[in-house]
Amino acid sequence: MGLNVGVYGGSGYAGVELVRLLWGHPEVGGLRVASRGYAGRGISSVYPELAVEGSYVAPEEIEASDLDVAFVAYGHRESAEAVSALIEAGTRLVVDLSADFRLGDAGLYGEWYGEHPAPELLGEAHYGLPEVFGVAGGRLIANPGCYPTAAILALAPVVRRVGGIRSVTINALSGVSGAGAKPSVKTHFVSVNESANAYGAPLHRHTPEIETLLGRVGEVPHVTFVPHLIPITRGELETIVVDLEEVPGVEEVLGWYADDYDGWAFVEGREEYPHVSHVANTNRCRLSAAVDRRAGKLLLFSAVDNLLKGASGAAVQNMNLALGYEERLGLEHLT
Amino acid sequence: MGLNVGVYGGSGYAGVELVRLLWGHPEVGGLRVASRGYAGRGISSVYPELAVEGSYVAPEEIEASDLDVAFVAYGHRESAEAVSALIEAGTRLVVDLSADFRLGDAGLYGEWYGEHPAPELLGEAHYGLPEVFGVAGGRLIANPGCYPTAAILALAPVVRRVGGIRSVTINALSGVSGAGAKPSVKTHFVSVNESANAYGAPLHRHTPEIETLLGRVGEVPHVTFVPHLIPITRGELETIVVDLEEVPGVEEVLGWYADDYDGWAFVEGREEYPHVSHVANTNRCRLSAAVDRRAGKLLLFSAVDNLLKGASGAAVQNMNLALGYEERLGLEHLT
Amino acid sequence: MGLNVGVYGGSGYAGVELVRLLWGHPEVGGLRVASRGYAGRGISSVYPELAVEGSYVAPEEIEASDLDVAFVAYGHRESAEAVSALIEAGTRLVVDLSADFRLGDAGLYGEWYGEHPAPELLGEAHYGLPEVFGVAGGRLIANPGCYPTAAILALAPVVRRVGGIRSVTINALSGVSGAGAKPSVKTHFVSVNESANAYGAPLHRHTPEIETLLGRVGEVPHVTFVPHLIPITRGELETIVVDLEEVPGVEEVLGWYADDYDGWAFVEGREEYPHVSHVANTNRCRLSAAVDRRAGKLLLFSAVDNLLKGASGAAVQNMNLALGYEERLGLEHLT
Amino acid sequence: MGLNVGVYGGSGYAGVELVRLLWGHPEVGGLRVASRGYAGRGISSVYPELAVEGSYVAPEEIEASDLDVAFVAYGHRESAEAVSALIEAGTRLVVDLSADFRLGDAGLYGEWYGEHPAPELLGEAHYGLPEVFGVAGGRLIANPGCYPTAAILALAPVVRRVGGIRSVTINALSGVSGAGAKPSVKTHFVSVNESANAYGAPLHRHTPEIETLLGRVGEVPHVTFVPHLIPITRGELETIVVDLEEVPGVEEVLGWYADDYDGWAFVEGREEYPHVSHVANTNRCRLSAAVDRRAGKLLLFSAVDNLLKGASGAAVQNMNLALGYEERLGLEHLT
Repeated sequence: MGLNVGVYGGSGYAGVELVRLLWGHPEVGGLRVASRGYAGRGISSVYPELAVEGSYVAPEEIEASDLDVAFVAYGHRESAEAVSALIEAGTRLVVDLSADFRLGDAGLYGEWYGEHPAPELLGEAHYGLPEVFGVAGGRLIANPGCYPTAAILALAPVVRRVGGIRSVTINALSGVSGAGAKPSVKTHFVSVNESANAYGAPLHRHTPEIETLLGRVGEVPHVTFVPHLIPITRGELETIVVDLEEVPGVEEVLGWYADDYDGWAFVEGREEYPHVSHVANTNRCRLSAAVDRRAGKLLLFSAVDNLLKGASGAAVQNMNLALGYEERLGLEHLT
Repeated sequence: MGLNVGVYGGSGYAGVELVRLLWGHPEVGGLRVASRGYAGRGISSVYPELAVEGSYVAPEEIEASDLDVAFVAYGHRESAEAVSALIEAGTRLVVDLSADFRLGDAGLYGEWYGEHPAPELLGEAHYGLPEVFGVAGGRLIANPGCYPTAAILALAPVVRRVGGIRSVTINALSGVSGAGAKPSVKTHFVSVNESANAYGAPLHRHTPEIETLLGRVGEVPHVTFVPHLIPITRGELETIVVDLEEVPGVEEVLGWYADDYDGWAFVEGREEYPHVSHVANTNRCRLSAAVDRRAGKLLLFSAVDNLLKGASGAAVQNMNLALGYEERLGLEHLT
Repeated sequence: MGLNVGVYGGSGYAGVELVRLLWGHPEVGGLRVASRGYAGRGISSVYPELAVEGSYVAPEEIEASDLDVAFVAYGHRESAEAVSALIEAGTRLVVDLSADFRLGDAGLYGEWYGEHPAPELLGEAHYGLPEVFGVAGGRLIANPGCYPTAAILALAPVVRRVGGIRSVTINALSGVSGAGAKPSVKTHFVSVNESANAYGAPLHRHTPEIETLLGRVGEVPHVTFVPHLIPITRGELETIVVDLEEVPGVEEVLGWYADDYDGWAFVEGREEYPHVSHVANTNRCRLSAAVDRRAGKLLLFSAVDNLLKGASGAAVQNMNLALGYEERLGLEHLT
Repeated sequence: MGLNVGVYGGSGYAGVELVRLLWGHPEVGGLRVASRGYAGRGISSVYPELAVEGSYVAPEEIEASDLDVAFVAYGHRESAEAVSALIEAGTRLVVDLSADFRLGDAGLYGEWYGEHPAPELLGEAHYGLPEVFGVAGGRLIANPGCYPTAAILALAPVVRRVGGIRSVTINALSGVSGAGAKPSVKTHFVSVNESANAYGAPLHRHTPEIETLLGRVGEVPHVTFVPHLIPITRGELETIVVDLEEVPGVEEVLGWYADDYDGWAFVEGREEYPHVSHVANTNRCRLSAAVDRRAGKLLLFSAVDNLLKGASGAAVQNMNLALGYEERLGLEHLT
């Protein structure tokens, strides 16, 4: 029979990737895809690159109590409301791709996003970065942000072992799909092409997510996070500069990566610096390290595909693990 | 009659820009362009985007003693040899686009590039960033590197005024023309397109240039410099994170930029963060600033076109100033 | 004192180029730039890549009777209305960048665009492709479309001399700026990047313009015109296949180009096929030819920058010629 | 145990795709990858985007008699020699990705490529476009060229049914991976980016392949084929203009596509024009049609990924069919 799966927000970029992955997933039996804007239109007619059958439906057309798994890819706050309704209706597992259940604290959430619509669920949400925080046991997974995914995978093994970190600066480069599917001046081809720019610094909303989650692993100071937009469709590269009392060697750091990510299929440290092209269209995170002995700094490099390991690929990986499947199921070609 | 000008290394990217600019310069009377690889071929046949008349010649076909100005765009060490010969032959003004005369110290040069071929000329070379170091009086100008241009223009006004700088990290994004015209795997379209990567860190050769020249302005610690390649043809963006005891305000920093660059046509601080597209195909440097109060850091942003303000545009600007012309002469459309 | 010039529609891509060119034009004394959406905002704050002083104004703030020259860059029909009002108010010369006065026939216009708002002016409009149709004498210039510019410059010398043309197929590649500045799904970076597609065929509105204007030069059959969108910002390349009774040789065609465009600064036939990069950011049109003897066809290649020779560069060139200046005035760096 | 498979030429772009696909293929038991230039180096170290184990070997290290299937991705003539040796050594099935066995005629081959190194094998080679020419029965498959794949799939259903074709013009746009992995001026990022150009016309070597193979389906005149390079990594789009006595309707043509490709997984006609993004990173060919009634022409549009359906994807599909597997085996995620 297979799993009965629903996708909410199935016409944004993360939603499109979810549909692509779930359509080919061997354990998914029924797939319902909701989109307010496109309800009634054939999915493959809206997105000809998706060779899937069926049409978008309105959210209310999906019977939430029948769903084994629901993926919610709405904006923040709206997402929490949908999640709350799904859980109340009896959906077995909800994977939320928004920021709503990541911080785990209604107060901190309020500072960055406004009042939380479902604070009673914060306690049971599991932050879905299994390589660092293990596998979820409950019914709600907070799927990590793309930038925090790359940052935490690079930093956790260091923070876990090393004290005296004085400063962490994350310089991130992101493809344009990270800015969403909604047309705007800033995503117009002519604005982006042959250009690059910093944006959102120094108060991008992924900052508290990185700090909070790293804080569960060890001690870290406030993080300076500077995202940049570059003219590529997908992928993210983070160059992380860590100022710390005693700088470890590159071999040592690569050893920590090897130890901590042993047995996990998608995360790997390597000597060569990661290029975005090494991870684009995959569910990988590739890590590397360098040391600036003159200035006494550790440099970490981390690359992910923002729509896969940074969003929908991780969401399916989280579903797999939560339901007891192998983490790669349906993602083998993205390894 | 006009100036008699020679370009050595006229078929690399910097050389091509020099030819384009000098061909349209109102004070240039005669232009001779040397290229070993293309001697005898029409310039506009090798580079159809250059609508200039005449053919490349072999370097030895140019009578150096007749030259009012020579531009040398060779690789390091080879450049110093050519410069030395030109000066000996009596060329009135030599603008060297290589790194050979920038560091001003044969010992430091030796650590990064090998033995200096003409150390006796180091003393008289003027570092050609006039907005910071004034106008050259002599016969030899060391044209700055592209990364140092963006870095020093952003940092000098800060370093000049502020003590207690604990750390400087420069994250730079560069277009592919910065990697030169020679075909290689790393400049192949398929390698670069839809990708991005750090390279050369943490020991890129522009690091000592930045440190040395900033050191003439004020006190700075060792600089961590991490360049990245991104899929654009031209342009550079630097995001500079300064860790210092007392973080100034954004208004204050923009005020320093306004004061220091008042009267200079090509450098400007602005509230909005610079995009590469704001400076591409111009001789501008655009600067901005932000403050991360939580982490106690000052962020500076600096953008230039690596082939213009970062190389050939600056070279012509330097020639203009050294010969007593307005700095914009022949560069008005690049303002 | 200089010319008093107004630009209407100064915040679209063609308008931006007009402002850039007119700001640096030696004969322009006063420049007023109208934009409904941005009235009151600094031009350089809306478009930081434009280093011009002054703010956008509302159209009605410009005193039309004071204008020596007005450039109108509105959409069709709206443009004709503005042109009509300007001429009535006494503007000395109006250059209209829309399609409204190109076809010269209210009936044909009606088939493609709807009822013409100012048919009484059709008779006095001069089609502003001076290399083919000479210099305007009157007060209204219909600035050519970008695709027709490239097509007519390539085809006119052939059509003028050769009979028995059985078929003309124009395959055109266009950069995204040709689709306008308005954000939409089809101009979103993610839609365009790493893709290419035909659009608008087989009934693009530039078809009747090409046919009508070529028809003034010689006999041509209906033209099949297939435009494509490719991921570049600016530039157009047309590959034109002509099926004719007796195929001329390449040398012969290049000879016709040399003869017909002798003395014109911006149009040139060459042996090498034009690349978009040979004309981007210039006011050039570059032409070439090939012969497919096996299939009995003549191939013509034509490249322009859609925003310069295909729009604003040509508009300034037309102003220059109409006012008796050298055609290159203010455009020297685009030669 | 699985199939024992060898790849020759495993470090070119087609080779890399072959390795990626065969590594994940459920019936492949052993995979040996030969590369002269990289023998001894880890595959994933040379191409970090390939997460496969093992190292490149020298061609002679592979025991050809043990191979169930060999893929040869060499240049022409060199390929025929390797194929000949493999077949002699007893390899069960050879899929040749070069042009050597496509034309089926040593004389015609000689005109375009020089003397054929193994004319005795021409008779038994099967042209591997199964949707048009059925499934191979023998031991040698000539894998089609990328341009001919797109052209023949679009044209065969028309040529099969319609007489009186007067002229066929194919305008093709290709990504840069089609130009091969070898660095050169023409594949340098700076040469390709923000540009586009025709090349190789009017005598590209894929012309006789298109004519010869279409000639087996029906009557066609000489084909005019004009390829263009555009700044994308992968994908091809062909716009085909057919001049014929009686122009069929769009519905009719789409009906032919539906009939002829019924039951084939990878080829599909649709009303919407194909974008390269609809087929990139898939093994699809997407087709569409339009009619220019004014000029009396039929327009066909065809898009493929040059490295997948245009090369390595088709090669694996051919292997599947030749060995009796479902055509999608190991290619499901590329459907």
